Amino acid sequence: MKPLVGFSADAAKAEFELEKQFDAKLNRANLQQWLKRLSAKPHHVGSPGSKEVAEFIAAQFKSWGFDTNIETFYPLFPTPKTRLLEMTAPTKYSAKLSEPAVEGDETSSKAEGGLPPYHAYSIDGDVTAELVYVNYGLPSDYDTLATMGIDVKGKIVIARYGASWRGIKPKVAAEHGAIACIIYSDPKDDGYWRGDVYPKGGFRNRDSVQRGSVMDMPLYPGDPLTPGVGATKDVARGPFKQAKTLTKIPVLPISYGDAEPLLKALTGRVAPAEWRGALPMTYHIGPGPTKVHLKLEFNWDLAPAYNVIAKMKGAERPDEWIVRGNHHDGWVFGASDPLTAMVSTMEEARAIGELAKSGWRPKRTLIYCAWDGEEPALLGSTEWGEFHAAELKEHAMVYINSDSTGRGFVNLEGSHGLESFATQVARDVTDPQTKVTAMERASARRASTGGKVGGDLTIEALGSGSDYTVFLDHLGIASLNIGFGGESESSGSYHSNYDSYDHVVKFEDPDFQYMLATSQLGGHMMLRFANAQTAPWTFGRFAQTVQGYLNEVKALTDDMRRQTERSNELIRSGVLSLSADPRHTYVTPDAKSEVPHLNFAPLENAMTKLQASTKAYSALKTDGLSEAKSQELDLVLMKTERALTNTTGLPRRPWFQHTIYAPGYYTGYGVKTLPGVREAIEQRNWKEAEEQIVIAAKALEAYAAEIDRATSIVKR
Amino acid sequence: MKPLVGFSADAAKAEFELEKQFDAKLNRANLQQWLKRLSAKPHHVGSPGSKEVAEFIAAQFKSWGFDTNIETFYPLFPTPKTRLLEMTAPTKYSAKLSEPAVEGDETSSKAEGGLPPYHAYSIDGDVTAELVYVNYGLPSDYDTLATMGIDVKGKIVIARYGASWRGIKPKVAAEHGAIACIIYSDPKDDGYWRGDVYPKGGFRNRDSVQRGSVMDMPLYPGDPLTPGVGATKDVARGPFKQAKTLTKIPVLPISYGDAEPLLKALTGRVAPAEWRGALPMTYHIGPGPTKVHLKLEFNWDLAPAYNVIAKMKGAERPDEWIVRGNHHDGWVFGASDPLTAMVSTMEEARAIGELAKSGWRPKRTLIYCAWDGEEPALLGSTEWGEFHAAELKEHAMVYINSDSTGRGFVNLEGSHGLESFATQVARDVTDPQTKVTAMERASARRASTGGKVGGDLTIEALGSGSDYTVFLDHLGIASLNIGFGGESESSGSYHSNYDSYDHVVKFEDPDFQYMLATSQLGGHMMLRFANAQTAPWTFGRFAQTVQGYLNEVKALTDDMRRQTERSNELIRSGVLSLSADPRHTYVTPDAKSEVPHLNFAPLENAMTKLQASTKAYSALKTDGLSEAKSQELDLVLMKTERALTNTTGLPRRPWFQHTIYAPGYYTGYGVKTLPGVREAIEQRNWKEAEEQIVIAAKALEAYAAEIDRATSIVKR
Repeated sequence: MKPLVGFSADAAKAEFELEKQFDAKLNRANLQQWLKRLSAKPHHVGSPGSKEVAEFIAAQFKSWGFDTNIETFYPLFPTPKTRLLEMTAPTKYSAKLSEPAVEGDETSSKAEGGLPPYHAYSIDGDVTAELVYVNYGLPSDYDTLATMGIDVKGKIVIARYGASWRGIKPKVAAEHGAIACIIYSDPKDDGYWRGDVYPKGGFRNRDSVQRGSVMDMPLYPGDPLTPGVGATKDVARGPFKQAKTLTKIPVLPISYGDAEPLLKALTGRVAPAEWRGALPMTYHIGPGPTKVHLKLEFNWDLAPAYNVIAKMKGAERPDEWIVRGNHHDGWVFGASDPLTAMVSTMEEARAIGELAKSGWRPKRTLIYCAWDGEEPALLGSTEWGEFHAAELKEHAMVYINSDSTGRGFVNLEGSHGLESFATQVARDVTDPQTKVTAMERASARRASTGGKVGGDLTIEALGSGSDYTVFLDHLGIASLNIGFGGESESSGSYHSNYDSYDHVVKFEDPDFQYMLATSQLGGHMMLRFANAQTAPWTFGRFAQTVQGYLNEVKALTDDMRRQTERSNELIRSGVLSLSADPRHTYVTPDAKSEVPHLNFAPLENAMTKLQASTKAYSALKTDGLSEAKSQELDLVLMKTERALTNTTGLPRRPWFQHTIYAPGYYTGYGVKTLPGVREAIEQRNWKEAEEQIVIAAKALEAYAAEIDRATSIVKR
Repeated sequence: MKPLVGFSADAAKAEFELEKQFDAKLNRANLQQWLKRLSAKPHHVGSPGSKEVAEFIAAQFKSWGFDTNIETFYPLFPTPKTRLLEMTAPTKYSAKLSEPAVEGDETSSKAEGGLPPYHAYSIDGDVTAELVYVNYGLPSDYDTLATMGIDVKGKIVIARYGASWRGIKPKVAAEHGAIACIIYSDPKDDGYWRGDVYPKGGFRNRDSVQRGSVMDMPLYPGDPLTPGVGATKDVARGPFKQAKTLTKIPVLPISYGDAEPLLKALTGRVAPAEWRGALPMTYHIGPGPTKVHLKLEFNWDLAPAYNVIAKMKGAERPDEWIVRGNHHDGWVFGASDPLTAMVSTMEEARAIGELAKSGWRPKRTLIYCAWDGEEPALLGSTEWGEFHAAELKEHAMVYINSDSTGRGFVNLEGSHGLESFATQVARDVTDPQTKVTAMERASARRASTGGKVGGDLTIEALGSGSDYTVFLDHLGIASLNIGFGGESESSGSYHSNYDSYDHVVKFEDPDFQYMLATSQLGGHMMLRFANAQTAPWTFGRFAQTVQGYLNEVKALTDDMRRQTERSNELIRSGVLSLSADPRHTYVTPDAKSEVPHLNFAPLENAMTKLQASTKAYSALKTDGLSEAKSQELDLVLMKTERALTNTTGLPRRPWFQHTIYAPGYYTGYGVKTLPGVREAIEQRNWKEAEEQIVIAAKALEAYAAEIDRATSIVKR
């Protein structure tokens, strides 16, 4: 008998039986029909398509027995009015900025009413200037430019997609004085270099453009006008221009077809080897002689965001909420992103509805959410989370997110207290292609890509980029993000007009097997959370993982110290300028202040305490508890994650309150664990690093105290 | 006063004074005029141009007072009769196989009589088959193909230049059953990806082809018909088809312009990421549907190779020869390769000739050699070395080679007993661009590319690829190879029709400064070797370096053991096939036998002995010796390198007799230090590895014994 965290052996047996019944009810035909239907028209937030999709989903949930309603919020959502990009020198070129219909892709000719390529939350602008190629547009790229004596002040920069979340690029460009930013998909990162392009293969073709949000979401996501509160119809709002999360300069995404003539015309320094992409040319940096004129104007309107909220009340512990979500809006047709996982979630909910119709009831309350407006800024989920903050903090036990899914390997990310829970679910879902468990296949992948052979699967920490953000980072609700992928070619259609039903069935999940596996994965999670005798937390894995993070930030400090010593030695000895090619400008960077030894003792001591608390709780048997005691224990366990938050938030971004997980201030989606400490070190802010060590230590101590509370309840 | 190995303080002072006089005689105008003149027509071995060049050089040496003659040998040298490459399916394409004239390059329109693009020592052939892309065509690339279930038997392979010497590619292709091999220059490695192409910049353009030898030179270089003996007019020769160093399959070099349509038409598996170049397409492996027809026929003639040999007899120790060489033949115009360094060597000799005319005489005999036929197979130098083997082994103290030179950093390679000598010379030559010493600039480069800041410069071991090969590897004569480079764009014209005077003056050494610096570098070496009181060996640096090689081969064994364990674990656990994409063929490789622990004790003990001998010799003062004793000591020192040879040679290639340095059997030019030991380990031939450990140990012991002999002479 396989162990099941939160269940006694008998209860586990019943649970496995229930999951078998659940699996038997899943039907691939639904996935196919819903995917086709929901991706038939553009359905971005604010569009008629989005409303239709929301209403269709709501009707389905209703028909499956869920108490369903549509909760609407009204965030700011700019749509393009003018998009113009032209090269004015040394030759003329007008960027197409459009994605034509392609053969074999039915909806590509039906994009009317859909959003053309643009970046949401770019400011308006009308500028003309010389162009500079800035690689990925990261802070380190500007350091490299500085050594070459190249300044982007007053210039328009062109950056390629990749290496960071896109919104970082205009943010960093503006910090360096650029007056506009163009972002293009280089075929090296996202085009023919990677594989055959659409429609022959799944990869990005020369006209395809990656749309996306460039809002400063690392500051706060959701409606720019209502940070921290729900964007209800009548809430007080300032003028849109005062919103802090709009970009500082205009920014526009383009295809590599449109980028090629601009880049080819650049002269000046040849780009460093790591900066070069796969266009058939020598990559130069400029500035100029390429001169471009960029004009952008947007409709700065509020858009209704329709969240579908569907509840199934718990029979025994109705005040404990298990929240599951996936967004329903797409940039255009959104077949892969988000519908592959949206239809999986629907099928999962339908099967649970059927179980309920046949007499089964969840112990805890299940809440299914289909979010609107995820794409521009996690709008629907953020506003809902902010609006319901108090009750969510009180009742939400967990938030389980999915976004898109495809052929490949199971992907589990989230709060490490739920690591055993999540990996047990993966243990009990079969991989459709190989017929081993999803866990075994993911473990094989880990081994074959350089990791451990065998042993437990682990889960990754969550950054941002989908609807779990408000739950985990703002409210401190333990969260998971789940799906499959790694063998689908979904990256090639990402946020383009070609993210279509045809693309999905040709290059992502041809026979809907992985969408079905995702229904199983999510469904088993919901059923286990719904039915567990005790909320399924295991703190040992959390403590072990955080100890790893602590080791990392210590090693980071030591590495920075060594690197600073080395680079200062190179600078002071003069070897950098001496070995540079005298034909080119070389500006020796300034020496940096040395890296001090930081006092990590508060975190070390907190970890010692946490290990002890964890050990004590792990030693307990919780499956023979009375119902009353078990409920009391649940109330403690479900709030442990809240102890990891700090209500003053991270420095310069109070919305982000989790002390262990956050998206990076300069990486965007990518996670920074122990973010306050790690980012202070990365930014060489030693005073702040020591302050943040104390704050993180206090959070871990509070977490340990909650575990001790749980222990005392069981022991009492 | 700077120390000078081999000189007392007083003698050093006189030597520095002499070098100052030498420097004052150097004249850049000569470099310019000779470069222009010698690169005006094609001058490959066997061409009228080569004879003219040899005669011109000989006349110059004569006029400078050298006892000069032309020694002619008659090696086999095939030239192309038929070169045809066409794609017959899925569409038709006829490869151009030619390099048109380009604007601004005067000689590119005067290539008549020059060699068109081809590979020397490819066999004849007329084959038609499907094409397979094999990346660089290394053994590991065929391992990768095997995991994909792709077999090249009966196919024609197309490999890109790079990662190995070119001759390895057809050799390995034939070992795997391919029936022909095409080699092309991918723009990633050698074209627009690296920089602006010719004539706008110095890099390889879409029509440019890298000619070259594909003879199996790691077996033996020089005339294929007369291994080990000089190819004089009347020496006995077998039929050319019996020569062991011809390729086993036909092979042809092409441009990326000609490769693109062939590669674009390939389908089948997408090439792994590391296999992809910079052509604007998705790289596929095939086989097919590209089908190509390759027809090659050659004139299998003997060609006269004119070596210019110019001597200046030593006044005091005429039987101690200091040999200096550079080849004079080019693939076409050969302005950069070899003439940049050939004219430097001439100017160096001219200045020495002037010193001699004004009364100075070298203590030892100087021999300047201008080799013919280096490009096809080191023909001139090898045949001369083989022909004069006995007297060279008796009299040659050192061989100092150069080949081409250009803007950048001093480059010193060779026998480590001469490391202190060589780096002292670099210490005393000024870098033309920065005015620091060449040593300081090279040291700055080392620091700025990740190496040590400050400290002694070291020299690299010699593999093959130029005329030092017969001296060092076959005869055991201590050798050096010298030049400048790293900032010139000479790689872009390498072995093409565009290796021209115009290319050199635009993109390599515009004002002849580095050619002049090369004259100083070579000239100072010759003068110091000519005048030293004691031959300038320092054994401590040799012992330290060889200890490093020993540590490397031990670490290699340990790494292979760990990697074998890991990869066998991956194979046996089944994770490789489980994680592979089920849509594609995946063939799990066979597990490998485990790596045993080898007995390195003989080498360890030999090193202990060597360190002791070295220490004893280093402790001596040699500058007050009598002339007789000094001469006696010289005779020992000059033969120490011979002790490192083993007359039975390396396994399967007896021509290569040095136990410390050799070109790699599967890498070509690239050096393998402790070659017998290292290659046996790499090939997993454990028995041979232990045999070679004993052989290398004996050589080091013999070397130590020679050092002891030197010590006893001094002490006596």
